[in-house]
Amino acid sequence: MPRQAADRPLLAVLRGERRDPPPVWLMRQAGRYLPEYRALRSEKGGFLELCYDPVAAAEVTLQPIRRFGFDGAILFSDILVIPHALGQKLWFETGEGPRLAPPLIDGDLDGLKADRSKLDPIYQTVRRVVADLPPHTTMLGFAGSPWTVATYMVAGQGTKDQNPARRLAYRESFAFQRLIDAIVAATVTYLVGQIDAGVEAVQLFDSWAGSLAPDEFLRWVVAPNRAIVEQLRERRPGVPIIGFPKGIGEKLPVYARETGVDALGIDETIDPVWANEALPANLPVQGNLDPLCLLAGGEGLGNAVSRIRAAFSKRPHIFNLGHGILPDTPIVHVEQLLAKVRA
Amino acid sequence: MPRQAADRPLLAVLRGERRDPPPVWLMRQAGRYLPEYRALRSEKGGFLELCYDPVAAAEVTLQPIRRFGFDGAILFSDILVIPHALGQKLWFETGEGPRLAPPLIDGDLDGLKADRSKLDPIYQTVRRVVADLPPHTTMLGFAGSPWTVATYMVAGQGTKDQNPARRLAYRESFAFQRLIDAIVAATVTYLVGQIDAGVEAVQLFDSWAGSLAPDEFLRWVVAPNRAIVEQLRERRPGVPIIGFPKGIGEKLPVYARETGVDALGIDETIDPVWANEALPANLPVQGNLDPLCLLAGGEGLGNAVSRIRAAFSKRPHIFNLGHGILPDTPIVHVEQLLAKVRA
Repeated sequence: MPRQAADRPLLAVLRGERRDPPPVWLMRQAGRYLPEYRALRSEKGGFLELCYDPVAAAEVTLQPIRRFGFDGAILFSDILVIPHALGQKLWFETGEGPRLAPPLIDGDLDGLKADRSKLDPIYQTVRRVVADLPPHTTMLGFAGSPWTVATYMVAGQGTKDQNPARRLAYRESFAFQRLIDAIVAATVTYLVGQIDAGVEAVQLFDSWAGSLAPDEFLRWVVAPNRAIVEQLRERRPGVPIIGFPKGIGEKLPVYARETGVDALGIDETIDPVWANEALPANLPVQGNLDPLCLLAGGEGLGNAVSRIRAAFSKRPHIFNLGHGILPDTPIVHVEQLLAKVRA
Repeated sequence: MPRQAADRPLLAVLRGERRDPPPVWLMRQAGRYLPEYRALRSEKGGFLELCYDPVAAAEVTLQPIRRFGFDGAILFSDILVIPHALGQKLWFETGEGPRLAPPLIDGDLDGLKADRSKLDPIYQTVRRVVADLPPHTTMLGFAGSPWTVATYMVAGQGTKDQNPARRLAYRESFAFQRLIDAIVAATVTYLVGQIDAGVEAVQLFDSWAGSLAPDEFLRWVVAPNRAIVEQLRERRPGVPIIGFPKGIGEKLPVYARETGVDALGIDETIDPVWANEALPANLPVQGNLDPLCLLAGGEGLGNAVSRIRAAFSKRPHIFNLGHGILPDTPIVHVEQLLAKVRA
């Protein structure tokens, strides 16, 4: 059932309109800084249990909407559900992070048994959220970008400098290309599923896009993201795609131009004045408050918000952090941020 | 005793001359990829024991010069000898990395007992190396940049995202400024000592310069590096200073302009064509082969070397890696690299 027609400021900006004040949401807004999230998570047992439980995941997705009235609700899930659906075992070690087994040290997926039905609960989550979402709130889906997802698949866990995947990409570029292609295909199907369940825009998270040398960046970051954009646009036209390539600095203009994303998320290390000058004039930009600035609060927070808003005062802008909100961020600082952004 | 007059290509390039082929050295060239280094290190017991033993440290500094004839010999030492001289205890946990105690969680140095004589063995190392160095080889000293050194001093160890120091800098910027100022002062004295012992150029390593938001970058990276450049230039004029701010991408032009460094090291993620266009025309640039490309070897290595040389074919250029050489790099790949650079 399609959602009620209504003005959705976030969706309007993603389509190229400028709104003042800018719409706002926060990466990881459904998360540990919220007491209601912590309560539900400890009841359900863990992070992955929440992700695969549509009732709980929908509730978690809606919690920050109820509390803060953000302009976007982002699906509560994880980028590693794709490796899981492709056949790797997935679990989280307490205090350490994700584990995938077996690690694909040679990039070879052939021994794994893919099972796309593992993604069904996530589509159910989307349907549940959309049914309860206020009419002006945009529903956002997401996936990891192939390079970032591959770094976990190859190493079997997070790594300091993505060394195992980078080595494999240099040494066995043919095998690595096959792995990337498989992730591209699975990601397109997954995002189509999210869109058919009700998401109105999607974000591609490329957390480790910044670890590659320039030619490798073009091959393993730009090309796969462009492939996803092209295939998604063909299969589900009109759904805006936000690219978020973290840590790529001076390569942002190349990424924006060559991938064809509809909007660009920028991280907190980027000078917004530089970004505004360097990026295409009408490209919607999302970002880029330092999560530590939000955590620290005080006068610095207000000043930082003003500087970001001023830098992007002539283009479509979505206010966001440059990275996920930190678990020990005081809720009162989020309230102060929203008051300042909406002033 | 001053060194014999001779043509030193690396020093000439640092002073603004272009040389073709470019002079070459590699970050961490004195290190674990060399069997002769591993033998001496296991004999001496550990990394710090080597650093503080002038005979051993001089030998380690000279090993790669004998084997490969690099154009620069870089002092074998560690950036954390400054916190050690400022009064923190320093040791290395096997397989984990450096530890400093007590961690300066509030940035306050007052409880520590500084002892600058801890740096004396390092000056002795320089004197020993210089006495044995071939006449055309340039002797390079170095120090950590204040921000990077402070991240270790505050956390008491390496951290994934420099979170403890970044928090302190937001929350207690006055205390953090005092800590940075103390590191600036100690670093200038330390580099003057290295110069007086015989180093002919110095490099400032700012490994974590890329983790800061733009205003914090100006305050904690640019300003302290500029202070070091100004004070060193006043006290020991004519000694070139190489800045190496890792991971700062689009902020490289600002860093180069505002710190006043004589030459700029760039990391492997930077597109050399972009860097050549974005940086001042005659600024000497050092870099920027991906250490993983050197490790992987093969056709890709030759192509990458050619692309870097071509990009910097109109400016003073020192060939180097974009980051330290990896311990499992085959020595034959270093030989191939040198043949290609010198071709």
